[in-house]
Amino acid sequence: MSAPLFNRVALVGLGLIGSSIAHAARANGVAKEIVGTARSDKTRARVKELGFLDQVMETAAEAVAGADLVIICVPVCASEAVAREIGPHLSPGAIVTDVGSVKSSVVAQVEPHIPDGCTFIAGHPVAGTEHSGPDAGFAELFEGRWCILTPAAKATPEATDRLREFWSTLGSNVDIMDPEHHDLVLAITSHIPHLIAYNIVGTVADLETDTRSEVIKYSASGFRDFTRIAASDPAMWRDVFLSNKEAVLEMLGRFSEDLSGLQRAIRRGDGEALEKMFTRTRDIRRNIIDAGQETERADFGRGLSGSSKKD
Amino acid sequence: MSAPLFNRVALVGLGLIGSSIAHAARANGVAKEIVGTARSDKTRARVKELGFLDQVMETAAEAVAGADLVIICVPVCASEAVAREIGPHLSPGAIVTDVGSVKSSVVAQVEPHIPDGCTFIAGHPVAGTEHSGPDAGFAELFEGRWCILTPAAKATPEATDRLREFWSTLGSNVDIMDPEHHDLVLAITSHIPHLIAYNIVGTVADLETDTRSEVIKYSASGFRDFTRIAASDPAMWRDVFLSNKEAVLEMLGRFSEDLSGLQRAIRRGDGEALEKMFTRTRDIRRNIIDAGQETERADFGRGLSGSSKKD
Repeated sequence: MSAPLFNRVALVGLGLIGSSIAHAARANGVAKEIVGTARSDKTRARVKELGFLDQVMETAAEAVAGADLVIICVPVCASEAVAREIGPHLSPGAIVTDVGSVKSSVVAQVEPHIPDGCTFIAGHPVAGTEHSGPDAGFAELFEGRWCILTPAAKATPEATDRLREFWSTLGSNVDIMDPEHHDLVLAITSHIPHLIAYNIVGTVADLETDTRSEVIKYSASGFRDFTRIAASDPAMWRDVFLSNKEAVLEMLGRFSEDLSGLQRAIRRGDGEALEKMFTRTRDIRRNIIDAGQETERADFGRGLSGSSKKD
Repeated sequence: MSAPLFNRVALVGLGLIGSSIAHAARANGVAKEIVGTARSDKTRARVKELGFLDQVMETAAEAVAGADLVIICVPVCASEAVAREIGPHLSPGAIVTDVGSVKSSVVAQVEPHIPDGCTFIAGHPVAGTEHSGPDAGFAELFEGRWCILTPAAKATPEATDRLREFWSTLGSNVDIMDPEHHDLVLAITSHIPHLIAYNIVGTVADLETDTRSEVIKYSASGFRDFTRIAASDPAMWRDVFLSNKEAVLEMLGRFSEDLSGLQRAIRRGDGEALEKMFTRTRDIRRNIIDAGQETERADFGRGLSGSSKKD
């Protein structure tokens, strides 16, 4: 067996993504040692119980000392504080990356605090579930998923290749993009869908109590699909919308214009316009299934017996 | 074994729901004979090949002759034409029902064409998948799902009980409601979620080609969940929005107002408002899982091996 890719991987933040990286890195033998820290006492204590790290440190400064790969796994608006704290304690030659869902703002927050001789390469594993916290992590989370890296001009190709290999070993397909383009694409694939899901679940939460309980009863008719993504971590998503404001507002504008068009067609009883719209959207799903990003099983295969990968 | 509940069940329309009723009725021995018809030659020919009916008739008039249960399984706006055609051919004492997602407009369309001595009880099995047509049907579609009946004042309790027993035998939980209330509840649980899903998929379809292919590539980050329900039958959904205009526009108004509030919070960088909104929506999902209408498995249990119930 070849030597592990990294000697010591340090995770700053141990929620769903941080803990999944730990499980996956261990399962794939990609590091000699995996250490980490979390801000809250409770999380650190729980991670010690769960036992998926070699060491749990009190502070980010301690965690990164001696690490050749540092992965910041915190809500995006907390990135600057972490970078400021760890900057002076990074080992020469260390690669620093992150896992945030927004990239331009993270680059702006972190880059200035990375000392010469270290390399920051922003990253985004496009993977997750509706569960959060250190108990939610599992080794297979990144398998078959994309991981997008957005290296700055000053990142060496060697460092980028090494980080690419790290994510490949965890099972991901790695893509390289510039941060601004990443933020635009993710605004429509991820940020707007989450915003809309949160919004309709909120609309239901405001209904009269009787109607609300009936909505829950009949939720299998469509609504429940939205509640899954609207159950994702609130602090993480708050930060996404604060950090990717421009792209989100641009895409939200398009969405709202289109919705006004549908509303108008309904009000005027324009069946032809409705059917045309409902027909052309079918191709997109076909493309997603063809691209291997979705299963063709009816109803997401709900009702299957058997256990999930998480178990 | 007791005698079957009905002698002859006639299905008018043989898409996902009609064909699933045939499979389920046969599997559960609920009728001596199951016959049916579809408007298109192609569908009738395919149903003959699939062999899930005892007889496939050319016309609805022929299909309903001699049936003691007639189930209209067509897009809701086609209900009146079917009712007008079958009215004169119904057997005395026949129960007529339907499966449409909107109830007030169906009652108004069908009721006037039902002769004295027959009973119309509108119904809505709250079940479906994103697939359509006679090949999509399967016997377990209704198991553990709700079926809502909206009997008019002149429906006898005996007829309602018999129809209730039919759906119970197919595995459904039966609920009784008035048509207007049904349409309001379904507007928010089903019609608005479908409209929003169609809308965001449409917004993506309008993106520049390069961006669109990237959206497909990264669709697992949220977007793909919307494409499933936006792949549902276009003609069926066109009719739903044409038939439930008032309730849909009312609920769409609430949704749009709430979305403007979120948009404003993003524009102003109001993180507190965003986090508050994203936190309170979590309870709704918990309630849905507690009500047995959803699985708790992460990511809908995608990535499970094994075959779906459809296979």
